Amino acid sequence: MKNTFRGKVAIIGAGMIQFGELFDKSFETMIEEAYLNALKSVDKGLDPQEIKAAWLGTLYPPQGNSGVLLAYATGLFEIPITRVENACATGSDAFRNACFAVAAGVYDVALVVGVEKMRDDGAGHIQRSAVKQLWGGRGVTMPAFFGLHATAYMHKYKVTREEIALVSVKNHCNGTRYPYAHYRFECSVEDVLKAPYISYPLGLYDCCPVTDGAAAVIICRAERAHKYTDKPVTVLGSGLATETFFRHGDLTSFPATQYAAQQAYEMAGVRPEDIDVAEIHDCFSITELISYEDLGFAEAGHGVQLLKEGVVQLDGAKPINPSGGLLAKGHPIGATGVAQIVELFEQLRGQAGPVQVQNSPEIALQHNIGIGRTATGSVSCVHILGQSF
Amino acid sequence: MKNTFRGKVAIIGAGMIQFGELFDKSFETMIEEAYLNALKSVDKGLDPQEIKAAWLGTLYPPQGNSGVLLAYATGLFEIPITRVENACATGSDAFRNACFAVAAGVYDVALVVGVEKMRDDGAGHIQRSAVKQLWGGRGVTMPAFFGLHATAYMHKYKVTREEIALVSVKNHCNGTRYPYAHYRFECSVEDVLKAPYISYPLGLYDCCPVTDGAAAVIICRAERAHKYTDKPVTVLGSGLATETFFRHGDLTSFPATQYAAQQAYEMAGVRPEDIDVAEIHDCFSITELISYEDLGFAEAGHGVQLLKEGVVQLDGAKPINPSGGLLAKGHPIGATGVAQIVELFEQLRGQAGPVQVQNSPEIALQHNIGIGRTATGSVSCVHILGQSF
Repeated sequence: MKNTFRGKVAIIGAGMIQFGELFDKSFETMIEEAYLNALKSVDKGLDPQEIKAAWLGTLYPPQGNSGVLLAYATGLFEIPITRVENACATGSDAFRNACFAVAAGVYDVALVVGVEKMRDDGAGHIQRSAVKQLWGGRGVTMPAFFGLHATAYMHKYKVTREEIALVSVKNHCNGTRYPYAHYRFECSVEDVLKAPYISYPLGLYDCCPVTDGAAAVIICRAERAHKYTDKPVTVLGSGLATETFFRHGDLTSFPATQYAAQQAYEMAGVRPEDIDVAEIHDCFSITELISYEDLGFAEAGHGVQLLKEGVVQLDGAKPINPSGGLLAKGHPIGATGVAQIVELFEQLRGQAGPVQVQNSPEIALQHNIGIGRTATGSVSCVHILGQSF
Repeated sequence: MKNTFRGKVAIIGAGMIQFGELFDKSFETMIEEAYLNALKSVDKGLDPQEIKAAWLGTLYPPQGNSGVLLAYATGLFEIPITRVENACATGSDAFRNACFAVAAGVYDVALVVGVEKMRDDGAGHIQRSAVKQLWGGRGVTMPAFFGLHATAYMHKYKVTREEIALVSVKNHCNGTRYPYAHYRFECSVEDVLKAPYISYPLGLYDCCPVTDGAAAVIICRAERAHKYTDKPVTVLGSGLATETFFRHGDLTSFPATQYAAQQAYEMAGVRPEDIDVAEIHDCFSITELISYEDLGFAEAGHGVQLLKEGVVQLDGAKPINPSGGLLAKGHPIGATGVAQIVELFEQLRGQAGPVQVQNSPEIALQHNIGIGRTATGSVSCVHILGQSF
């Protein structure tokens, strides 16, 4: 892992659309709106013709393959468009590949769009596919899979359902303030415990919703960033790892996250304690809890302390998922990782409005997990972003 | 397009498997065999633990998503694995993204595998999907689509079916010598003309077969290449472009190829006349003919001359598709672009055996087209490779 990458790429614009059940928006419309929001966010303006390459992160493009739909949605023809897919970490990995191309000096300005239509067209496809490949195949559904992690974690560390529920309570509370969140309601520990089980010990409020969404970021070579904005955010580190559960004796961690985090910290030259704010992958409440530990924010088995002591609350010392996370914001697969980057871009610039954290964040961490191959393998992607103004 | 990329990435190993109807090989087995062949080709040896990242090019992974299957097939866990998809140009774009990461200095050594299972599992999926999305949707099947190009080309340039057939005759002749080709038979112009129509004017021998296959290449930072081989091949240029047919008045060219080629030539600092040998995308005979012109090897409407004058024959001045191309070798989608690079790596090193071209090639061009979004959009990828020994 080389430091030659560190600080070479700047984010100069970022935007997303209101997540939710977007039956009235086509896949292309969702891309277009996220792209235009990102474009609009470039303080000093950007001529679309300056965008020399694009990456599209999407799990199931509704009309055939390739990145052609991005060109239709944005009018960006003639340039390279690559589709990246990496299970639920699709959006993050699209961003990662775009960063490499810019860091290599091949393109000055590049666009990354993450998008997913979960509630129709693609929806049936995604849901049927998940059930066919997981349950009907050799694996389990996602709630069942993460439920196994939760029971293993509860057993090993003597953690209760009430304690895991604190993740949902925190994130839904943050989500009520976040303008782009799908779900905008508060819930108490009691609400979480009383909600119908999806897969024990996970109830309805322990699970992220099925959500449509899109998000976009515009990156450039760091030395050119000030042409476009006085407040660029640079990419300090990037990590991605693939792992199988067969190689590990227990389900109380996601080793892929540990490897990815190690890569990203090493590249960025920072430690877990240097992270001021993070958007991390809470597809289920238990996932966030385990990820505190995999990312080095807490010792194994001690993640709950961060919740109980208020460290990870919106006004805490290390706020986590100020946007409400996947639990409140939703998890439109290809869009998720890109939306996390949008959110952290705004946090680092002090522009996160109602969810702006109060600890003057300078370094942020983004984390996105994916589960592949009938739930026997996992992928994890981590980016570390820094203020550069 | 910056020259900062030029010559930064070297290919140090490349291998593929015998293409064909591989009902007896799983997706993972195909990956594994191609990977091991690539590893074996690294003259001075490579410890697999030196591989720090991988890219998987595949259109339809049979068991869910992500790059996890590559880890299972190779044992390369813990490292980053990205799946890239870009219609029929999938393999080429996987290679392109891997090159960016290595050129950015992030990884010293990376693996690229392209693979597709067309004849079972994935097969039904791919074929049904193509028909559903194209014919049943708003577009046409692939033979019908390329048939439209052929009739437009024949009409505009007064070219005959006999002349187009020269592509099939050449490539099938080359394919009889190429050990990894799916089809190993010669055919005459008369054979091509008498074969059953698939979609006028394209007959059976104008169309590539439905083929399973896998191919792998290992790349590294160019300055480290001599640790692994005395005969590295460097990547001089890379281009990718996306286009829609709606923006162009006629079907006698693929503008995406023109843009991609322009990017690649500019980056490499070479001209079409500098290319000594090329593997180009002949999914149908007409595609190769049109691509001669899009790549700048002939003026528009004059591609047939290259065939008639023997320029592009195996023993010609600019041999094209010495491997037999997609027409003879087959077109396992994700594998195709990577296999083209394998072939050119061997040509530039003088190791192409029975299909070794005789003009002492120093610069090679690889070209791979994809059709996306119900056949209204296209993508094209071009790489230029050079001897660096």
